[in-house]
Amino acid sequence: MSLLLIAKNRDLEPLKESLLAVDPNLDVEIWPRVENKERVTFAVSWNHPEKVLQNYPNLKVVSSLGAGVDHLLKDSSIDEKVALTRVVVPSLKDQMAEYVLNAVQNYRFNTARYVDQKREGFWSAHDAVPKSECVVGVMGLGEMGQAVASSLIVNRYSVVGWSRTKKDVNTFESFAADELDEFLDRTNILVCLLPLTEETDGILDLELFKKLKKPAYLINVARGQHLIEEDLIYALDTGVLEGATLDVFEEEPLPANHLFWNRPKIMITPHVASITDPKEAASLIVENYKRSLSGMDLLFEVDRTKGY
Amino acid sequence: MSLLLIAKNRDLEPLKESLLAVDPNLDVEIWPRVENKERVTFAVSWNHPEKVLQNYPNLKVVSSLGAGVDHLLKDSSIDEKVALTRVVVPSLKDQMAEYVLNAVQNYRFNTARYVDQKREGFWSAHDAVPKSECVVGVMGLGEMGQAVASSLIVNRYSVVGWSRTKKDVNTFESFAADELDEFLDRTNILVCLLPLTEETDGILDLELFKKLKKPAYLINVARGQHLIEEDLIYALDTGVLEGATLDVFEEEPLPANHLFWNRPKIMITPHVASITDPKEAASLIVENYKRSLSGMDLLFEVDRTKGY
Repeated sequence: MSLLLIAKNRDLEPLKESLLAVDPNLDVEIWPRVENKERVTFAVSWNHPEKVLQNYPNLKVVSSLGAGVDHLLKDSSIDEKVALTRVVVPSLKDQMAEYVLNAVQNYRFNTARYVDQKREGFWSAHDAVPKSECVVGVMGLGEMGQAVASSLIVNRYSVVGWSRTKKDVNTFESFAADELDEFLDRTNILVCLLPLTEETDGILDLELFKKLKKPAYLINVARGQHLIEEDLIYALDTGVLEGATLDVFEEEPLPANHLFWNRPKIMITPHVASITDPKEAASLIVENYKRSLSGMDLLFEVDRTKGY
Repeated sequence: MSLLLIAKNRDLEPLKESLLAVDPNLDVEIWPRVENKERVTFAVSWNHPEKVLQNYPNLKVVSSLGAGVDHLLKDSSIDEKVALTRVVVPSLKDQMAEYVLNAVQNYRFNTARYVDQKREGFWSAHDAVPKSECVVGVMGLGEMGQAVASSLIVNRYSVVGWSRTKKDVNTFESFAADELDEFLDRTNILVCLLPLTEETDGILDLELFKKLKKPAYLINVARGQHLIEEDLIYALDTGVLEGATLDVFEEEPLPANHLFWNRPKIMITPHVASITDPKEAASLIVENYKRSLSGMDLLFEVDRTKGY
């Protein structure tokens, strides 16, 4: 029995080391140099090349190396009988909560503008956006979304939430799938933390932006495919949105000639909001690997029909 | 009896309106067009020209328009019998706490670097500074300093504090004046919130920076005079400090040819960390004005020997 690590353009040695630190007896292979494909029963993937997992006849489980599983679901060559799972470690949620708080504060406090002014040696103060005009609407109330909401509430932001099913929470108002318009009507700063599914693909479009409360701002930390990129440009140019912070893009790395780079109202980070720490991920992966070997239920198993 | 508002280069009409909204019967004058100097018993000042208050023979109280009073103390022409007070409203503390949290997060998450990369259309990820290497040391544990510490603790930062007298607080370790070295030895991110007094003038120097725990970072939100500016440049160039966020400067506006503008490791904001909201300030000023008329103790009265 062996465990396969597979990712494009990513050094997986640190993860292998962390796995062996948890259990030195593990047999860990790193794609593409796999000695014995038949022995692989469990794969840990981040954006593996499509169809390559077909070559592992005894594969029982594929775990995403992160919280998102869209890269697994889009590979239709993975057999339906293979269980899918994912890595949701506390630090992922903490990082995401900190990233979103920072993005909200940087919008309120004109950070990018001050960085630009500094380059020019230019001293000029700008009003902060009052907190009362910063009601944050969190789309997607899974592990990440709930952590983001909690951190904002602790920092005295008003929060509303939207998810497939209404969440039973005390600290903020939660809206169900069919209450999207009510949710948007209450939201100044929209934070997208949705899983990428057929229903959510392209959900961030001009029509939706227009329904937000003014002044409106967008933070996308989910997937580039949630956003209709040309609609964002149009919304910024016409004042529908004040600005946006984007950590994810349709194409990553964002091409050097992409329109987004030249828009002063867009803040860009290179998909760093939430990065799996190999040490923390290792314990969870080993736990799920052992569960798969002994036939126990997996932690964080993915429901293919829901898409997360 | 009348109340005088006096400041250089600042529009005081909004404050006058706010004061009249609290009590329409107030007699409010705005410097320099003062009809009757003899009627003025209470002045509200922000950086008034030195000696000008000598022209008001019946002055009983001067209130700073902000939390700092160094601009009042340095004017030796204000009679010793004139009481000094200041405006400390909740939003000042909240703003300061938010500013410092934002500065800490922007250091950790390489925000200025990403803003610069965006200008160049350049996609490159950088490691965040781990929270474990971000112990925040707050110098000055008055109203502002305690609010800053609380907000950092709520956001799960380790905090230590330093002040003239040891504070009796449960949530973080506090050091007394003679324990400065122990305090610095525990601190990665130094936040200066000290009042400007003879003892604290120039306290932020190279010798002090060298005593900080590595990696070390500076946030100055108190007064420009706390910092020996050339020592900061030297500390950045020699790796003693990783960077600095500065909201205050010896000379403000910071001159266009100042060395700080060209240092990529310095983040500059134009003295905006904590701005008195006229509406909130008005209630406190009117309260102190009425107390002065009726001979009651003032709120937030300044102890001239301490300097705050």
